[in-house]
Amino acid sequence: MSESNKPAMSRRQLFSLIGSVAGSAVMYEAMSTLAYAAESKFDGPIKLSGDPKGASVIILGSGLAGMVAAHELGKAGYKVQILEYQDRAGGRNWSIQGGDTYTELGGFTQHCEFDKGLYINPGPWRIPYHHHGILHYCQELGVAMQPFVQVGYNTFVHSTKAFGGKPQRYRHIAADFQGYTAELLAKSTQQAKLDQMVTKEDQEVLLQAMRQWGALDRNYEYKKGPRVSDRRGFDKDPGGGLTARPIDSEPLGMQEVFKSGLWASVAAGVGYEFQNTLFQPVGGMGMIGKAFGAKLGPIIQYNSKVIEIKQDASGVTVTYVDAKAGGPPRTVRADWCVNTIPASVLSQIPMSVGAPMRAAINALSYGASIKVGLQFKRRFWEEDEKIYGGISYTDQPNSMISYPSTDYFSKGKGVLLGAYGFGPNAYRYSAMSPEERIKKTVEYGSKIHPQYPVEFENGVSVAWHRVPWTLGCAGSWTEALRAQHYDNMCALDGRIILAGEHASYIPAWQEGAVTSSLDAIGRLHQRVMAG
Amino acid sequence: MSESNKPAMSRRQLFSLIGSVAGSAVMYEAMSTLAYAAESKFDGPIKLSGDPKGASVIILGSGLAGMVAAHELGKAGYKVQILEYQDRAGGRNWSIQGGDTYTELGGFTQHCEFDKGLYINPGPWRIPYHHHGILHYCQELGVAMQPFVQVGYNTFVHSTKAFGGKPQRYRHIAADFQGYTAELLAKSTQQAKLDQMVTKEDQEVLLQAMRQWGALDRNYEYKKGPRVSDRRGFDKDPGGGLTARPIDSEPLGMQEVFKSGLWASVAAGVGYEFQNTLFQPVGGMGMIGKAFGAKLGPIIQYNSKVIEIKQDASGVTVTYVDAKAGGPPRTVRADWCVNTIPASVLSQIPMSVGAPMRAAINALSYGASIKVGLQFKRRFWEEDEKIYGGISYTDQPNSMISYPSTDYFSKGKGVLLGAYGFGPNAYRYSAMSPEERIKKTVEYGSKIHPQYPVEFENGVSVAWHRVPWTLGCAGSWTEALRAQHYDNMCALDGRIILAGEHASYIPAWQEGAVTSSLDAIGRLHQRVMAG
Repeated sequence: MSESNKPAMSRRQLFSLIGSVAGSAVMYEAMSTLAYAAESKFDGPIKLSGDPKGASVIILGSGLAGMVAAHELGKAGYKVQILEYQDRAGGRNWSIQGGDTYTELGGFTQHCEFDKGLYINPGPWRIPYHHHGILHYCQELGVAMQPFVQVGYNTFVHSTKAFGGKPQRYRHIAADFQGYTAELLAKSTQQAKLDQMVTKEDQEVLLQAMRQWGALDRNYEYKKGPRVSDRRGFDKDPGGGLTARPIDSEPLGMQEVFKSGLWASVAAGVGYEFQNTLFQPVGGMGMIGKAFGAKLGPIIQYNSKVIEIKQDASGVTVTYVDAKAGGPPRTVRADWCVNTIPASVLSQIPMSVGAPMRAAINALSYGASIKVGLQFKRRFWEEDEKIYGGISYTDQPNSMISYPSTDYFSKGKGVLLGAYGFGPNAYRYSAMSPEERIKKTVEYGSKIHPQYPVEFENGVSVAWHRVPWTLGCAGSWTEALRAQHYDNMCALDGRIILAGEHASYIPAWQEGAVTSSLDAIGRLHQRVMAG
Repeated sequence: MSESNKPAMSRRQLFSLIGSVAGSAVMYEAMSTLAYAAESKFDGPIKLSGDPKGASVIILGSGLAGMVAAHELGKAGYKVQILEYQDRAGGRNWSIQGGDTYTELGGFTQHCEFDKGLYINPGPWRIPYHHHGILHYCQELGVAMQPFVQVGYNTFVHSTKAFGGKPQRYRHIAADFQGYTAELLAKSTQQAKLDQMVTKEDQEVLLQAMRQWGALDRNYEYKKGPRVSDRRGFDKDPGGGLTARPIDSEPLGMQEVFKSGLWASVAAGVGYEFQNTLFQPVGGMGMIGKAFGAKLGPIIQYNSKVIEIKQDASGVTVTYVDAKAGGPPRTVRADWCVNTIPASVLSQIPMSVGAPMRAAINALSYGASIKVGLQFKRRFWEEDEKIYGGISYTDQPNSMISYPSTDYFSKGKGVLLGAYGFGPNAYRYSAMSPEERIKKTVEYGSKIHPQYPVEFENGVSVAWHRVPWTLGCAGSWTEALRAQHYDNMCALDGRIILAGEHASYIPAWQEGAVTSSLDAIGRLHQRVMAG
C-alpha cells in the first residue's frame, strides 16, 4: 500500500506523533510532504468558443474562483453577476493594512494599527513559479510581482528540546546535516559496506560526490576547516588587510544535529511549493483581489448573504439578504450558477442539488490555521541579525516567524508574520482572545529574538476557524474522502457547478481556486453549447 | 596536512582533473569550495578619531577601495584627491548599458546595442547578505537593492557527457541526488552496516531523517510516487475540477545521476557566498560606483594615467599623464598615498617601495574570466520555460547562463548573461574576437535553449585579461603565495599603503576591496596620529 493510500486516521496519528517528537515545524513538513504537491495544470488562457446566446450565470462568491469565472464567462458572451457576502473582493486573497477592522466569529473586533504601507496576508502569501494560472491573471491584471524569499540561510531554526533551547542558524544546521550525512555514506562506501547496492566503479564516483557535496576533508570527515566554514560560516569572518585572516567555525555535534529534528525545517525549502523562485504581489497578496474586483466593477454585488439556492428545469434562483442593512430577502435568477462558496459555509445553506454533491459538501472538513502579524519599532532582524526575508522555524505554537520580502534595508518600522500555525497549535490559538494571541506570540518570539519585548508595538491575528465567511482555512481532503466524494463535488449538478480550492487537487492554494474555476466553466460552457 | 595547506600546484592539478572529468561547473564549485569563503569582518562604520591637522592623501584609483578611502579620510579631516585612469568611477564595479563603448587590449572596440534599461555586469554582479561592508555603503549612498536569485529550481543543468547531452531541470537533479543519497544511507543503516559509526538508538533517528529528507517511501526507497513528485515535479500537474488528478514523474537513474556530475551545480547554491539572501542594486551593479563617484565629485580627477610613484621622507609624488589628451607628465604631491591600482598593473609602474612589497606585487597573478551578455527579442526563458532568475550550468565553455533577477513577467526584450567562464574556458574565449565570442556563446546556449538562434539580437563581452586597467579578473592567491607575500602586500611602506580586493582574504569580491580599504586607512590614520 503506497503512502497516499493510507487511511486518514493513521496519517493524523503519524503527524501527531511527529509533532510531539520533533516539533511543529517538522509536522508541517511531514504534512506538506505527504500531501499532494501544489503544482498546476494550467496550460494557457482558456478558450470558450461558440456563442452562448445570452445565457446568464449567477456566480456566488468573489474570491479568485468566482472572479475568474465572471471574467472568462463575461468575455465569452455570458451575462454574469456575482453575489459577494463581504464588502470587498478577493475572499481569502486578503491583506490586512493599518486602519482595517475585522470582526471574527464570537464577536471579537480587531482594529489593525500598522503604519502606512505595512500589512500581513492572513491567507495566501506566496506564489510558486509553477502556479501558472494565478500568475497568468496577475499579468493580465497588471499586478506587479516581487520575489518571495522562502529560504534564508541566516534565519533561525529552534527547538525547545534541542541545543538547550538555543536557536541555531539555518546555515549551521543545513551545512552540518548535509556534511554528516555525506560522511556517514562516504564511510559506508569506503568500508565496502555498499557492495551489494553499488558497483565498485560507482563507489568511487559516490565517494567523490559525497566529499564535494558534504564539504568533507580528504579523509571523508566533516570537520572544522575552511571547506566547512565555506558552507556554515566562520567564527571570525575574513576581511581585508592585516588581521583579516578568518577563523573557522566548529560544527555542531552529529548526534545532536540528527536528534534535534531541526534539519526538517531546512528540508522545507526543497519541496515543490517552496522552491525558488516564489513570488508575492508588491503591496500585499490582496492586490490581486483588489485589481480583479476593480476590473469587474458593478458585476460584483457586495454585502449579499446567500440564504438559499434553488434550481428547476429552466434556471437557478438565489435568495440573499443584505448582510449589513438587513431587510427582506431578495432573489436573483439566472440560467446557470457557478457556486464558489466554501463547502464549510455551503453545508449550512439550503441548495437543491442531488445527494452525491450534498454528501460531498457535508463530508469535507476545513483545516485550522492561525496567522499573527506583529509591528515593531524597527527592523531589528535586518539591523541586528542580518536576516533578509526567509522563515525561522520553532517547535513553539507560533511555528514560524517570516521576515518581510520587501523594503530590505529600509529604516523605520516593520511587520513580521509572527505566527503561522496549523492543527493543534491553531486550535490552541483560536481559543484565545486576539489580545492573548498577540501576547503569546510575542512571548514565543522572544525566545528567538530577545528584541521582541522592547521593539513590539501592536499586532493583529486571524484564526481561520473563526472567519465568518470560510469557517476554516481550506478544504482538508484525505485520500479516502477524495475517492468517495471528489468527483461528485466537481460534477455539474443540473444547472449548478461548484468551484474553488476545495474542488481541486491543490487545496489551500490560490492556484487550486483558479484551475478549479477554469475547469468548471469549461465544462459548463460545453454543456451550454450542447444545448 | 589540512586542505588549506596544500601547495598551489596540486590544487591546480586537482581543479584541472575535476574540470576534465566533471565539467567546468564542477571545477568552479571545487575552486570556490577550496578557496576561502567570501565573508566579511566588517563590524560597523569606521571611526577615525583625532585631528590629522591638514595631512593630505593622494589616492590612486576610484574603484570601491579608492572611493571608500577618499570618503572616510575626507570625513576624518584629511585633504584627499583621487587619480583615476578611466573617465568614470567604480572600476570593476561596472554595468555595460546600451550606447556604451568599450575598447579592450588588442584594439577591439565594442558598441553595446542593448535596449534602454538592459545591461550586464561584467565584474561583480551579486552581494551576499553577509558582505556587510559593501552593503553599508550601499545604504549610505542610497543605492536601492533587490534580491539576486542565485538558485532557480526550474533552471537547467547540462553536461554534454550525460543524459545524451539533454539538459536536465535543476529540480530533477536536486531531488534525485538527495533521494538516492538518502536511500543508500538508509539501507546501510537498515542493514546494520553503520554499527561502528552510529549507536543503535541513533540509527533509528537517522532512518527517519533519511526517509523524510530524501522523500523515501516506507521501504526507504527513492521511487516514483507523490512524495517524490512533491520534490521534483509531476509528469502531469495537478489542478482543479475533474481530469485534474496529477501523474507522478519518474526519477532519473541513480547511476547516471551520480556519474553525471550535475549534482555539483546543485551544490553551488549552498556555499556561503551563494546562499540566500543575495542582493543586486536596482539598475545594475554599476549604480554603486556611479553613486559613489557623484558623491565624491571633484575629488576624483579622471583620465589620469599614473606613470610613477615616488616617496621621500616628507611625502609622496605621483606622476601622471592625461590618458585621453596626452601632453606632458604632471605631478601631484601629498603627505601619504593610498594606492588601489591592481597589482597586475602596478607591477609595471615604477614605485619607490621596499623589496618585500615589490616582491608581493610581482608575485601575484591575476585570474582569467569572461562574461558575455546577449540581448534577445523576448524573455523566452520566462515565457516558454518558466525560469525566473537563477543560473543554468553547462560543461561547455560558456559555463553558465544567468537569467535576470529583475523585471519578472515583463514583455519585450531581455538580456541574459550568456557566459561566465573561468580558467581554461576564459583563456579560450579571450583569444577570440568579440564577434566570435558572441557567435560561440549563442551556439553553446542553443544546446540548452533552442530559441537562441531565432530570438538573438546582439551581444557584448568582457574578457578580463584584455581589460587595460586590470589585466585580469582578480588577484589569484594561493596558500603558499599568501604565506610568503600577503603581509608585505598590506603593510604600510613608508608613506604608501596598498588596498583593494588583492589585499584581502576575499579576492574577487567587492567586500574584499571595501574591508581592505578600511583596514588600510585605519592603520594609516594610526600612523599619522602617532606623528
